[in-house]
Parts: sequence; C-alpha cells; structure tokens
Amino acid sequence: MAVGKSARGANLCRRQRAQGAMNKQAVYHAIRSNYSFPVSENELVIRLRTAKGDAESVELIHSMKYEWTQRRERSAMQKMYSDGLFDYYVIRMVLADARFAYIFLIRSGGREYFYSESGVTEAYDYALGYFDFFQCPYINSADVHREVSWARDAIVYQIFVDRFCAGGYGKEKSYVNLKWGEIPDPKSFAGGDLDGIRLKLDYLQETGFNTLYLTPVFESRSNHKYDIRNYFRVDPMFGGERALRRLTDEVHARGMRIILDAVFNHCSAENGLFRDVVKKGKRSRYFDWFFIRGDRPDEERGNYEYFAGCKYMPKLNTNNPAVQDYLISVGTYWMKKYGINGWRLDVADEVSEVFWRRFRAAVKRTDPDAVLIAENWQNAYPWLGGDMYDGVMNYPLTKACLDYLVYDAFGAQEMADRLARILMRNTDPANEMMLNLTDSHDTERFLTLAKKRGKDEGSLLCALAIVFFSKGMPCVYYGTEIGMEGGYDPDCRRTFEWDESRWNGRVYDAVKKLAKVRKSLGGGILYGARDGVLTIRRGDKMLAVNNGEKRRFRAAGKEFGIGRREFLIIDLKDGGVL
Amino acid sequence: MAVGKSARGANLCRRQRAQGAMNKQAVYHAIRSNYSFPVSENELVIRLRTAKGDAESVELIHSMKYEWTQRRERSAMQKMYSDGLFDYYVIRMVLADARFAYIFLIRSGGREYFYSESGVTEAYDYALGYFDFFQCPYINSADVHREVSWARDAIVYQIFVDRFCAGGYGKEKSYVNLKWGEIPDPKSFAGGDLDGIRLKLDYLQETGFNTLYLTPVFESRSNHKYDIRNYFRVDPMFGGERALRRLTDEVHARGMRIILDAVFNHCSAENGLFRDVVKKGKRSRYFDWFFIRGDRPDEERGNYEYFAGCKYMPKLNTNNPAVQDYLISVGTYWMKKYGINGWRLDVADEVSEVFWRRFRAAVKRTDPDAVLIAENWQNAYPWLGGDMYDGVMNYPLTKACLDYLVYDAFGAQEMADRLARILMRNTDPANEMMLNLTDSHDTERFLTLAKKRGKDEGSLLCALAIVFFSKGMPCVYYGTEIGMEGGYDPDCRRTFEWDESRWNGRVYDAVKKLAKVRKSLGGGILYGARDGVLTIRRGDKMLAVNNGEKRRFRAAGKEFGIGRREFLIIDLKDGGVL
Repeated sequence: MAVGKSARGANLCRRQRAQGAMNKQAVYHAIRSNYSFPVSENELVIRLRTAKGDAESVELIHSMKYEWTQRRERSAMQKMYSDGLFDYYVIRMVLADARFAYIFLIRSGGREYFYSESGVTEAYDYALGYFDFFQCPYINSADVHREVSWARDAIVYQIFVDRFCAGGYGKEKSYVNLKWGEIPDPKSFAGGDLDGIRLKLDYLQETGFNTLYLTPVFESRSNHKYDIRNYFRVDPMFGGERALRRLTDEVHARGMRIILDAVFNHCSAENGLFRDVVKKGKRSRYFDWFFIRGDRPDEERGNYEYFAGCKYMPKLNTNNPAVQDYLISVGTYWMKKYGINGWRLDVADEVSEVFWRRFRAAVKRTDPDAVLIAENWQNAYPWLGGDMYDGVMNYPLTKACLDYLVYDAFGAQEMADRLARILMRNTDPANEMMLNLTDSHDTERFLTLAKKRGKDEGSLLCALAIVFFSKGMPCVYYGTEIGMEGGYDPDCRRTFEWDESRWNGRVYDAVKKLAKVRKSLGGGILYGARDGVLTIRRGDKMLAVNNGEKRRFRAAGKEFGIGRREFLIIDLKDGGVL
Repeated sequence: MAVGKSARGANLCRRQRAQGAMNKQAVYHAIRSNYSFPVSENELVIRLRTAKGDAESVELIHSMKYEWTQRRERSAMQKMYSDGLFDYYVIRMVLADARFAYIFLIRSGGREYFYSESGVTEAYDYALGYFDFFQCPYINSADVHREVSWARDAIVYQIFVDRFCAGGYGKEKSYVNLKWGEIPDPKSFAGGDLDGIRLKLDYLQETGFNTLYLTPVFESRSNHKYDIRNYFRVDPMFGGERALRRLTDEVHARGMRIILDAVFNHCSAENGLFRDVVKKGKRSRYFDWFFIRGDRPDEERGNYEYFAGCKYMPKLNTNNPAVQDYLISVGTYWMKKYGINGWRLDVADEVSEVFWRRFRAAVKRTDPDAVLIAENWQNAYPWLGGDMYDGVMNYPLTKACLDYLVYDAFGAQEMADRLARILMRNTDPANEMMLNLTDSHDTERFLTLAKKRGKDEGSLLCALAIVFFSKGMPCVYYGTEIGMEGGYDPDCRRTFEWDESRWNGRVYDAVKKLAKVRKSLGGGILYGARDGVLTIRRGDKMLAVNNGEKRRFRAAGKEFGIGRREFLIIDLKDGGVL
C-alpha cells in the first residue's frame, strides 16, 4: 500500500537534495555496533556517518542515562575518515558511569539537525528522550571484545606445511612423490614437515616474523589436510606429535607464537566418526554428527551434506551439542598440551554460531590471550562482535589491493576511500585482530596476478606495504617474501625456493624493512591521497604508495620523488625517508 | 587526512543528486542481519533498502554459492514498505542449498546498477564474485531464530499484581495499607495477589486475553517487587508458592499461558546474597556477585553499583559465571516446577550479553516454546538476532502512537512511515514476538496523556487498534481495557475498578472486538495512508484509523465514512465493516 506514494516522495527527496539539503538517508548510527562499542569497562567509541561533505560539524549531546532530563554535556566529534560516499565522525568517551545516553547535533548547510533513534529532526524534546536517545546501556566486562595482548606486535607467516621445508627427522618418507622444486599437482607430496619449519625459525625471525600460522597438521591422507581423519593426532607425514612438541617448544622459547588451523566445518570421509556411521547407519552414535538424508550415508550418491561439492568431506553437524563438545575438546586439547596461541577457523561462516560462541568461551577460558581468526571472505561484521571470532582473514583488503594495484580499477583517492570503508566496517578491537594478506593457499599469488597484467614485483611491494601499515596483523604467505609465483591451487602451493640466488631480493629486502618499520608504527591510522599518491599515516610515520609513473608529491612540508610502482616511508618528525 | 577532500566530494555528490542520480548512500543490505535472515533451514528472507522512489525495480541475482561463476538466476524483489526516507524491497527465497550467493540489480533513472559488498557499481565482474557477493553462508538449525508456536495467537494482559484483585485465601493481610479504590502512593499495599488473578480468569478470557504477564511475584518488601529478597520464594503477600501453583494450574487448564518477570539486573539490598557480603566483606563467597568498590559495601555511601540511583537495589555481577549459574537455576526452576511459559526480562540491556546467551540456551532447552521478552526501551536489534531475547516491549511503537494520536506530531502518512521503519528494524521472527503496548507500569497511562491534551478515549481506541493490528503480541496493561487512568508511577498503578458501572464501556467493547478480530488476521502486513486516514492491512482485513475530524475515504473500491478519532475494520472480501 505504501507503494503508491513513492513517486511523490521521491520527487520531494530529489527537490530537497537539489537545494543542497542534508542527505538524511546517509546519516547513520546504531547502538552496540561498529558505531558504538566499548574498548574497556569505561571507554566507549562512538562513530557517526553522514554523506560526504554534508556536515560542517557534529557534536555529541550526552549524559549519564538516568540524568538525561536534568543535565547534558556537549562534545565535538572529529571527522576521521571519508570514503567515496560518507564521512565518519569519531569520539572516544571515558565514562564516569557506563550507563550513557546521547544524541547527535549535526550542523549542515548552516542549519542544525538532531539525530536520535527517531531519525534526523529539526527539533528534539529532551523530556521524551528515554524513548529515543541512543545509549550504551551498561558495559559488562564479559561483553567487551578485548584485543589479545600481542595482536599489535604480531607479524604472521602462513605456512603450507608440505611445501615449506622438509626436516624429516626419521619419519617415513615413502609417501613423498614430488621432487622439491617441481611444480605440484593436486596429489603431490613434497615432504615438508614441522621439523622443517623448526629448522627455519632463524630465517623466519631474521626476516621479521614472530607468529606462525600453519595450514592443518592433523592426520589426513591429503597434502593440504583440510580433510581430517583424526583430530587428536598430528600427521606422521608432518612428524607426528613429537615434531609438534619440538616445534612449539622452540617457537615459544624464542618468544614467537603459533596458530593452528581448525577444520571444524567438515572432516574426512575416512574419519572414524563418519566410518562408524557408514558401517552402522542410524544405529551409530555418530549418526546425528552429520547431515544424512536416509538411513545411511551412501558415498557414491552423496546423500549427506558435504563441503563445496566434495563428497569426501562430509559436513559436521555443529548444531549438535555432542559435536560441539567434541570440537571444543579438540580446540582446548592442543592449547593445553602444546600451548598453541590460537586457531585459524576454516570455512567458519558455514559453521553454527551457537558452536562458535561456546568454542570462543572455552578457548578464552583456557587462554585469554589466544586468538581466533576465521576464514570469512565476505563482510564478517556479524561474527566480530566479540562473541565469536576475534578477526578474519581480511580478503576485502586483499581485493582492494588487487583492484588498485593489479587491475587499475581506480586511483589513489578511491583506494584511500576503500581502505576507510573497510576500516569502518568493524570495531577497533576487531580491526586490530584482522589477518591482513596479499595472498594465501586459496588464491593466486599476488605477484603472478600482477605479472599477468604486465606488471612487476613493484605492485606486490606496494600491496605488502599497505598490508604492513594497516590496522591488523600483517600476514605473509610462505614464499611471497622471496617473490615466489603461482596460479590457483595447486600452483600457489609450490615448494619453497631455498636457493637464495633465485630469490627476488627486492621483495625480500622490502619485507624485512616493512617488518622492522611495523614495530615502530603508532596506534592511530589515517588515509589520504595527494598528487595521485596514496598515503597511510600511522603516528609519525607515513607510507606513500605510487601505483603510477614516477612523480613528485608533497608531505610534511617537503617535496618527495617517488618511482613507478614504489612506496616510500616518510618519518614525519624530520621529513626523512626510511 | 581525508578531511581536505570532503568539500569537493560533497559538491560532486550534490551535483549528482541534482541531476536525479540514484542516492547511493541510501542503498543498504548486509548479510546475517535484519536484511538477510533465515526463517527455517531452507528459507531466507532478503531485504534491500533504497532511497524512497529511487528504484524502478530491483532484482536479486543469485546462485548456489559454489556455482556462482557457472550459473545464476534472477528473481524480482517486491517493494513492500516505504517510510519517509526509504523503500524496502523484500523477497523470500526457498533454497535448494543453504549456501547461497547473491547481488542486487537496481534499475534507477533508466540506468542499471549492481550492488554487492563492493557497493553500488555500474559494472560487475562475476569472476571475482567470491570476494564481494553477499551470501548466506549456510543455515544451521541451531542459529535459526524460531517463533514460539503460540506467538501469533497470544493476546497478553499485563498485571501489576498488588493492584488487580485481592483474592487473599487465608494469607496474612496486615501489610495492606491502601483501601481498594484509593489513590496509591509509592509505599501503598492494596492486597492484590495471585488468587485474585485466578478468580478473574473468566473475566480475562471472556474479554479475549489468553496470556498473562505478571510483574514480579518473588519475595520482596516493596509493592512492585522489583527488589527481590529471595528468588526461590513467591511472596506471601501474593499468596506464596501455593497460590502460584493454583494460578498456573488453572491458567494451563484453560489453555492460557503465563509469563513472569525476571529481575536479574539487580536484587534487593535485603537479599541474603548481599547481606552476606555486607556482613563478611571480601570474605563472603558472594563478594564478586556484586560490583563493590573497596572491601565491603557501605549502604550509606553506596560504594557499589546499583540500579538507577537506588542504593537499595545493588546490581548483580552477571559477568560472573557463578551468578550466571544461579540466575539460570532461578529461570529454569520456575519453568520446570510451574510450567511458566516465558520470562519478561527487567532492565535487560544492562545485563551481560554472555549471560543472556547462556540463559536463552537453558530456557529453550527446558521448553523451546517459552518466550523471552526483554525490557529494552531503545532499538533492541542487537539483542534480537536469535541468540538472546525473542522480542522486547515495543516502546518505539508506543512512542509512535503517542506522537501520532496524542501529540499530533504528524499525520497518517508519517505514521505509516514510522510503522514501516519500526517493522524493518528487526527480523520477521523478532517482529512476531514483540510485546506491543500502549502503556505499562513504567509509563503514564495512554488515556491520561490523551486527556491532558484535551482528547478522549478515541485516541486510546485508535492506539489499541494499531497495537492489535501490528505484528507482534498485543499487550494490554490491566485496567486499560476499562478506561482506567493514571499519571506516572505510582499513579499508573491504581487498584482495578471492579464496579462495571464505572467502566468506560466504549473502551471495553473495543478491546473485546479487537481481541476477537485479532484471531482472524492474516500473516502479512502493509501500511498506507489515504485521504488522511492511516491504513493497516492484514490479509483480507484492513484497519483504518482517523486521528482527525470526521471524513470519508476510499478502500476496496468503496467509500467509507469514519468518525473523529475513530477506527474502522473493513473486510476486504466484501467491503463490509466489522
């Protein structure tokens, strides 16, 4: 019924906009969201969004909730970010009482607007505020999404275990069917293992990494081990439990950290749990651990849920409390026994949220400093409220780097816009725990994509620089630091090139430098573009990225030259180049 | 740094808008939200928002997630709702596979726009879709927010127990200090109790109510009992456990339901838990059950957290797992022992979310059909995702009725807009479990507010009609159905008038009629305004509300007359008036 009115409404809207009135549809705030979140028991970050350039100023009108009608204060909000469409105003409030009420006063086009839960209005009746002010009802400590203590320090290295280094301390090696250095196919085994990683810890630390993230290490017939046969065994191909013990001990002795890959969406059809169901059908106590249509799984027909068209990967029913208990026991077992520092959660968005909440509680009870990083390719905001994951693999950032640096889809200003939009999508704590990456075992290598477009490692260097300057944990996929190439899986999983003479020294030196600079970066972040150059400012350091031809640009009162597809790091204290 | 660019950006935006381009800032969708939610394991509701009147059509381009690059289909979305600023397009998809990917195709001003997680674009590269399509990753049954089976059937009656009816079967009555019919003060006790309610079940059923919601009944010194001394005792003033047994048995025998009030944010300072801490200070095992600054609570100074300035209501530390366990045991105890059908959650937004999630799980495990309705006055969306509450007391709807019918803040069209905005704020399941009310023990009575503005019961009738025609459970505050009046607490808590000769018969008849009509309403809802009359359509019934002078309007091809501050219910099948 509302339909008939819309044409008239639209004409009215357009007329208003033509007169330069504020774009009311663009104004946004919501309580308990990425626009209003606690960072401690008495600190609240508040953001407001307006259409880009619409507001001359924004003030927060606020009070303790139960004093709203008696007294209120005003605090100016700061315009911190802009993207192509919106401006984002931010304020961080230290609260005397965590029951906090507020509305916004927006000045636009010389007029004043109030913004409350009743929307944008030209008048506001404070006496009825209890019906429509925004509020932080209270800050309960259990609900605060806390950064793990080492999140800002972490520089992560992702290792596809079979392809990084073969240590092979006395393990059975007959399964190896790929000569190191040859191009892998989907069934290749190159012999990489946990001892191999341990042997290379000097290399990794010297390069600047302090945190390892390994693809799955548990018993599985495949080279990738995303189809797990036994969640309580480390695969003998990777050296078994003893190799994990040696690796974790050595990693921790060096003050490094290690994250393992939790594949909880599905398991292998060879997993004992599934075999029991194949054997016993409905009489199996594990029947409800899977999603089976009919009395018994038929592996030919695939009358059960499985991952992404792969019948050999039956989907686990994480709605089932018994499955939840089991997977929680897996998660905490490896934490308690080996002190691992967190989990990367495979295909996390297809797994029950009820499960993730329970899993998070158990993991954080075991070690509040353990991190949970999920594989969510799309907007992961719904999962990043502090009740499920800490962060995700930041593929939207990957995509932005590709669009800007590889596909030339847009220039420096739009890249700055895109980065701001990605940042504003999540809370500050979630942003600090993002895993920022240029590529992974699930993508083509960035350098390969760049070369396909006729570009060189300069594009990769610029992307890496953006990753290292972003909020969140920089993560380098093994071999990216030496310029390794590869198309889609399995090609992106080639064996690591240990012959240094074949490394891309320019890439390696840049990664080493970025890892070093990263440790000195300030907490805040600002994005900009000037003279066609993208800038990212962190405290007194500024990154400048030039995706175009050699050019000059101004920063810190000085003029700088910057080469084709190059980045510069400027020390704003003295205008020096690092 | 982004700041410098904004003025130029704004001018560009304004110029684009002046040319009638689509308002890109208004376009909104987000996965796993009120814009994309499952209603069963294979049904997904998808909404899209645009600026009002901007789009000529919207199509969903969709596929099973892992087939995105191979094949996609298109489905037209329907414009279902409009408010003052936005149009809302809706589609309900039945999914062959719950891993579902989609983007939107919006036609506006004769042009086509794609809308994905990359925003509004004029081109879209399907090959890169995995980076930025919207998706339903999977629908896990444990994560579906399910309507309780009786939500659409419920017609709720809220009772402030001390003031409804004094049954008094042999209970101690010396505490009664208010003569029935006299105006209460904050310390009045009128003697109402659970037996009194039981004696009036015929009356309540005949009027049309089938669900009771009682303010707290547990042991407490106050008349309102929001300061509980013992969570495991029914107050002797209300007849003790035996009276609750008699009431719940009788209620259930009649096929009615009963909801009790869970006051978990705080308790009484007289509660044994708090007394123990007062006595033993830090040595008390309950010390961490409260928020105490220092070694021992000082009730004069109030060196502890308490509710809304009331030192006699110390705040419970619901972050503490022991407190969570205790309150969960309270919640399930009364469910298991008395079969109560749900809880109303007092001051719910100040209580830990971790607790609510655990509480919900325990409650639904005990009885999946028990409902959880919270007291959240503001936007409760963050708590209504299916992991915490089912619904809330819908004060935003109350406020809309007041603004429209009492304060004349706007006319029929803006009321239709407001109703649509409130509906679109939450998912369908949450909307069905809202508790819709004109007034409560925490507000002035609606009729009193109307009379203060020189209006009569016509305003209340119109508000009640809107409440009964809305999605969600209509709830009538005791006495509202007979036209009782009263200002703020304690005046809104007068004793029920049992002398029928003093009832407002027009109000009573209207409530009875609305309760009857409610049972025949269809599932869908549409809002409109025509000739200054607000219309709400549910299936083949249409409610017309006229807040102005007597007038005529057209509906179902016929012309109708409608009086001043009156409502009409039209049967669209035959144009008859009910």
